[in-house]
Formats: sequence, C-alpha cells, structure tokens
Amino acid sequence: MNYYSTQITNLIEELRRLPGIGTKSAERLAFHIINMPKEHVNHLAETLIEARSKIRYCKECCTLTDDELCPICASKVRDHSTIMVVESTKDLAAYEKTGQYDGVYHVLQGTLVPSLGKGPDDIRYRELEKRIQDPDHPVREIILATNSSLDGEATAMYITKKLKPTGIRITRIASGVPIGGELEYIDEVTLSRALIRRIEL
Amino acid sequence: MNYYSTQITNLIEELRRLPGIGTKSAERLAFHIINMPKEHVNHLAETLIEARSKIRYCKECCTLTDDELCPICASKVRDHSTIMVVESTKDLAAYEKTGQYDGVYHVLQGTLVPSLGKGPDDIRYRELEKRIQDPDHPVREIILATNSSLDGEATAMYITKKLKPTGIRITRIASGVPIGGELEYIDEVTLSRALIRRIEL
Repeated sequence: MNYYSTQITNLIEELRRLPGIGTKSAERLAFHIINMPKEHVNHLAETLIEARSKIRYCKECCTLTDDELCPICASKVRDHSTIMVVESTKDLAAYEKTGQYDGVYHVLQGTLVPSLGKGPDDIRYRELEKRIQDPDHPVREIILATNSSLDGEATAMYITKKLKPTGIRITRIASGVPIGGELEYIDEVTLSRALIRRIEL
Repeated sequence: MNYYSTQITNLIEELRRLPGIGTKSAERLAFHIINMPKEHVNHLAETLIEARSKIRYCKECCTLTDDELCPICASKVRDHSTIMVVESTKDLAAYEKTGQYDGVYHVLQGTLVPSLGKGPDDIRYRELEKRIQDPDHPVREIILATNSSLDGEATAMYITKKLKPTGIRITRIASGVPIGGELEYIDEVTLSRALIRRIEL
C-alpha cells in the first residue's frame, strides 16, 4: 500500500486489526480521523487508554467495570437474592436493556468448552459457588441465561448439576421461536425445540 | 446506558461518533479493546495521535502525506508530465491500486459545489494552475478523474474551460457501464450516457 504515506498506512493497518473492520472501513475511518480536529483525536486516544487501564472485574459478579463493585451490585434497589448467570458483560447489557429484570447478575466471562478442555476453572464459575455460600446474602434463585449454543447449554447443565444439591431454585431462560421471527427463516434446531417445549393454552 | 460502567460507556460513545460505527459495532469494538493487551491499546492510541499530528499536504500534488513531497511526487520513475486530477487521496489510492497509471496526481481535496457557493479557492485548484506554469516541469496532459457526480462533472468542466487556453491536452476518464455490472441494476443516467458515448466496433 505504498500509495499512502507511512503514517496513513500504519493507521489503516492498526484499524484493520479491529474486529469487523475491513480494508475499506479502515480507510474510511483513517481519513475521518486525519480530518478530525487534533483535540478530538487526542481525546479518543486517551479514552482508549483510560478504558483499557481502569477496567477490572466486579468483585461480586465479575462483570467488567471500573469500580470495586459494578453499578448493579452496588445498587440497593436491586433484588440481590436472584442471580442471573450470563456469559459476558454484553449479555448482561442485553438483559438490562429489556428493563424487565431487577435481580443481579453473575458474569462467567466465557463458557465451558468441553471440546477444547476449557473447564470451570477457566471461567468465573468458582466465584459463583463462593457467592452463594455467603450467609449474609442468601440466594433464592439462579437463572441460567447462557446462550442456547452447544457450549452455553453444556455450561447451564454443568451449573445445574453442581448447584442443585444446595436447594437453591435453578431456572433456565426459555428458548424457542423469537417474537416477530418468521418461521421460514428460523433454523431447524430452534423450530424443533420450540415444538418440544410447546405450552398449553 | 448505565448498565455499563463509566469507562466502557465513554469508550462506546467515542467509538460511536466514528463514521459507519453504530451502537452494536461500537460495543463490539469497545469490548475487543478492553480485552486487548495493554501495550496494543497504547500502540493503537499512539498511532492515532501520530497519524493526525504528522499528516500534511504534499507541496506538489496536495495529497495527504507525511513528508514535504508524497512518495509519488518524489518518485523518479513516474511520468511527471501527466497529471491526473482527483478529488481525494482515497481516489488517488483507487487509481494506484489498478497499477495501470504511471503519471502523477493532483488532489483537489474536494470539488466545486456551485449550489453551496464552494468555488475554486475552496479546493486545491490554484495549486494546479501554479503547477502547470512551472517552466522546469512542462505538463503534456491533464486527465480529469473527478467523480461522475454533479459536482465532480461541474469541477471537470470548470477546469477544462480554465485550462484549455494553455494548449495542454485535457482528457476525462470514460464513464459508462461498469465492467461486470448487470444492466438491470444500473441507474438510468449511467445507461443513457453509456448509450450516447457508444463506440464503433
């Protein structure tokens, strides 16, 4: 790419390494950045560094946050006796956006991947075990909201098996046909599962 | 978006301001960045700042570059008597990628926009005028490669009218049906122009 100068080429190359950014997008972004006021570029660069350096895991739920406790774990209005187990902070955010859940979360930061030998110690599972043993914060229900993928299901099954003996209620979010989804575009596994789990009306 | 911590929210907001980056992409990018090794993030941030601060216009052709002369204007193997006039550094790169052009460029950094009163002094047109008057570097041909848009055509017409009296050969890149393009998906203006400019076989 010697038709661009070194700096532009470097910038395009750096941007192209980011997920979902191809050559065309990287070029468009690079020229946008070059034409931005200098202070804005500095601010963007600082935000990157700042976010990366200040981020840590919430000591309660293991989500990515910048304080010892994330805003949800620190909240007094949330129901701390209901824990929804999700795979990632993005999944937590997805449920928060619904505005329908007022419990707290536990973010596994991954799933078990039996095929790759990724076990419970490779994710934030032990933290969950420890958390439910805390006598000051009794847990009433654990809602398993890992993805409906092979690994997500395996993780849900593993947690169920391990925590069932504690007597805590363990539930799994429903899977089936998405609301508004057109049947002809939905994969067979989802369709079969929706059939098996059909409910009485 | 209070379900993310302040740092993550800031980062997502900053990324969302970039062109072509929506909320979903900004979130994906943000989480990718947070999970990158610290040194990589620092390097990305430095590249942004470096590119923005070192970029300037080539004193010959006005493209964006980091030296006084861009690599093409500094090259001794290029034909300096043929100048292709383009709107932007991205357009220059598009022609360089073809590998079919060995002349030099002049980058207008925009077009005339008659409807908004944007005239020849608002783009790098005067630099072109000055450039072709240099007795040490006689120019044999000017190829107008502005876009086939309304403003691009207006700019090409303006330059033709102004520079015709110099006696320099002035040409315009061909417009017509793109190679491999299917007629049914091509707009009427392109189709009519392709018809008008049809060639004998």
